[in-house]
Amino acid sequence: MSISQKIKAASAQSSMIRKMFEQGPILKKKFGADKVYDFSLGNPNVEPPENFKEELKIIAQEIIANKHGYMHNAGYAETRQVIAAKINRIHGLKLDGEHVIMSCGAGGALNVIFKALLDPQDEVVVPVPFFMEYTAYVDNYGGVLRKAKTTDDFSLDVAAIAAAVNDKTKAILINSPNNPTGKVYSAQNISDLARMLNKKSSELKKTIYLVSDEPYSEIVYDDVVVPNIFSAYKNSIIAYSYSKTLSLPGERIGYIAVNPEIEEAEELLNALILCTRISGFVNAPALMQRIVARLQDVKVDVDVYKRKRDLLCSGLEKAGYKFEKPQGAFYLFVQSPIPDDVAFVQMLLKRNILVVPGSGFAAPGYFRIAYCVDDATIVNSMDGFAEAIKECK
Amino acid sequence: MSISQKIKAASAQSSMIRKMFEQGPILKKKFGADKVYDFSLGNPNVEPPENFKEELKIIAQEIIANKHGYMHNAGYAETRQVIAAKINRIHGLKLDGEHVIMSCGAGGALNVIFKALLDPQDEVVVPVPFFMEYTAYVDNYGGVLRKAKTTDDFSLDVAAIAAAVNDKTKAILINSPNNPTGKVYSAQNISDLARMLNKKSSELKKTIYLVSDEPYSEIVYDDVVVPNIFSAYKNSIIAYSYSKTLSLPGERIGYIAVNPEIEEAEELLNALILCTRISGFVNAPALMQRIVARLQDVKVDVDVYKRKRDLLCSGLEKAGYKFEKPQGAFYLFVQSPIPDDVAFVQMLLKRNILVVPGSGFAAPGYFRIAYCVDDATIVNSMDGFAEAIKECK
Repeated sequence: MSISQKIKAASAQSSMIRKMFEQGPILKKKFGADKVYDFSLGNPNVEPPENFKEELKIIAQEIIANKHGYMHNAGYAETRQVIAAKINRIHGLKLDGEHVIMSCGAGGALNVIFKALLDPQDEVVVPVPFFMEYTAYVDNYGGVLRKAKTTDDFSLDVAAIAAAVNDKTKAILINSPNNPTGKVYSAQNISDLARMLNKKSSELKKTIYLVSDEPYSEIVYDDVVVPNIFSAYKNSIIAYSYSKTLSLPGERIGYIAVNPEIEEAEELLNALILCTRISGFVNAPALMQRIVARLQDVKVDVDVYKRKRDLLCSGLEKAGYKFEKPQGAFYLFVQSPIPDDVAFVQMLLKRNILVVPGSGFAAPGYFRIAYCVDDATIVNSMDGFAEAIKECK
Repeated sequence: MSISQKIKAASAQSSMIRKMFEQGPILKKKFGADKVYDFSLGNPNVEPPENFKEELKIIAQEIIANKHGYMHNAGYAETRQVIAAKINRIHGLKLDGEHVIMSCGAGGALNVIFKALLDPQDEVVVPVPFFMEYTAYVDNYGGVLRKAKTTDDFSLDVAAIAAAVNDKTKAILINSPNNPTGKVYSAQNISDLARMLNKKSSELKKTIYLVSDEPYSEIVYDDVVVPNIFSAYKNSIIAYSYSKTLSLPGERIGYIAVNPEIEEAEELLNALILCTRISGFVNAPALMQRIVARLQDVKVDVDVYKRKRDLLCSGLEKAGYKFEKPQGAFYLFVQSPIPDDVAFVQMLLKRNILVVPGSGFAAPGYFRIAYCVDDATIVNSMDGFAEAIKECK
């Protein structure tokens, strides 16, 4: 007996996404980088905006007292205020800086939220397919993830979620724009969800939180609007990251925003701050907190992703693949031509195409393409995709 | 029922250190900043070294592919290699880059280590006094912290630690130089500990890990040497942070180093990487990883802290306080003139002096002074310290 038994078991079935990602360098070494088509990881290939690069140069020169020192565990007051102000401006809400807690990306935010909310055996309902790390994020605090199916176009199936809610349910976890489907839930869909949750809350006489994971909220196409959950449902919390908005996933900077109307707001906010501290995050990285405060109106060029989406969708459509066209994020969730998605992914792998099986998102029969890659990768992979589907016929 | 019951309880008895820290700004507003003597938090007031500032400017200008993107969860290979090389150079060891995993500071490192090691009810033995966050860091994974007394000069009491070890013991957690005592455990002391742990391991037929929290290992005075635990004990893991070495506590950058001789090294390393990912850290901040790789031989001017230590020690000695002179870190652990340390801390607070009661480190009858402050704060607080001790006589 040496390491944790629980972690030993988890190691054995580690993330399919990361496994694919680690295949990439090996294949590239063997075949040459331009002969390997790596769609496995959501690592944005679009550069951070010029304003970010400029601001980094400026702040590197600036003399600021306690520039890299500890601050309040919740983050710099100034950063929290400008974020609250931006949310208010866009959605007509009334957040103060105190409703925003800076986090180490959305992954850090979700862990802090679930640590603050969950007691062992509490349940979190998540629509399928979903980002598999959620299983760990809930399990880390003794919680249990309960799956609910989505509709044919990957919208929220409110009846299915309602059927999954019971007296152990602490929260519903949604992700819009969605990884892996690229779906943006409509305002009507969110409002139906909210109505059901209000009804269930009063029936069960308990608070059910709506936690919305929104790292892709600024990566949307064709004038699609991501509805704000705060206006729709009182007991709501947002986890946000600048990873995609500013192409900074390695820097681990994001925030938690809490609906000012939430029940027992002060208790929850204090719990979130405490959990930020005792989980070992302590605070979000100082320099990045200072920079994002100055870049609230800046984002990467979303048209670049749109072009990649269109290039990919038209190519795959021609080859005969079936999918829902994504409205946001940079993922395409494609029906596997054969029922066994893992086998089909192996067929693509033989052609040096790396994608992730739908099974890795609790949705067998599909596979995910992360199209945050060079245009050339998309274009040059098309023969391989076409051959693979032909082989299935 | 809303937030986690466990966290609700923890909120109620949150950190005394942070509570004192939050008093500071309130008092400063009321009395003026120069009339408040805030020794409550280990937030280094020494500036980061010039080399750090220069390197930040340089890296801000550099064009690097995927500069702020995801990397391997363990961190950049280059950073891990130079850290391993430095440890090897100083201590004559044989680490590879793979024995180093980059972390979000020492707090992040310790959480990842305990998540990887502990199953519920596993015990971790810690010498008293200790940094109170350890209680949460162990409890986060269902572990139980078991206290062992130290000797009169705050050295490890190996017999006391031995008495605390049982078949549930997974690890011993030490911190040298120590917060709050400033003690550096001698090579003999560490070697006695190692001998006892080897004996216990074979008696109990189980691996007992030695986890060493070493954020202050470069902040030592008077040619004191911090002995390397890797040479002394095979099953050992170091948690390190650049927070103090480079005065960057807000940036959350550190590492985990694993003894290459450790049992089942590969399994442990994989578990640590997995836990870095699933805890929501994902990886240590990218930019800081790149910078520390270039600054392995750089540290803050330790003589500045030495001067502060000497200033404080001579002043308090004259006033009649009793303490062990610290050999490292920037804390002084002073005997309270009255048995009730919390009451004495209140007497200091009336004189606008903020320190933390020893009770906050499981050691009633003492108080901690964090002397990482302006010289003026030390000098101008001396009257208040002298008055307070007089009042007790």
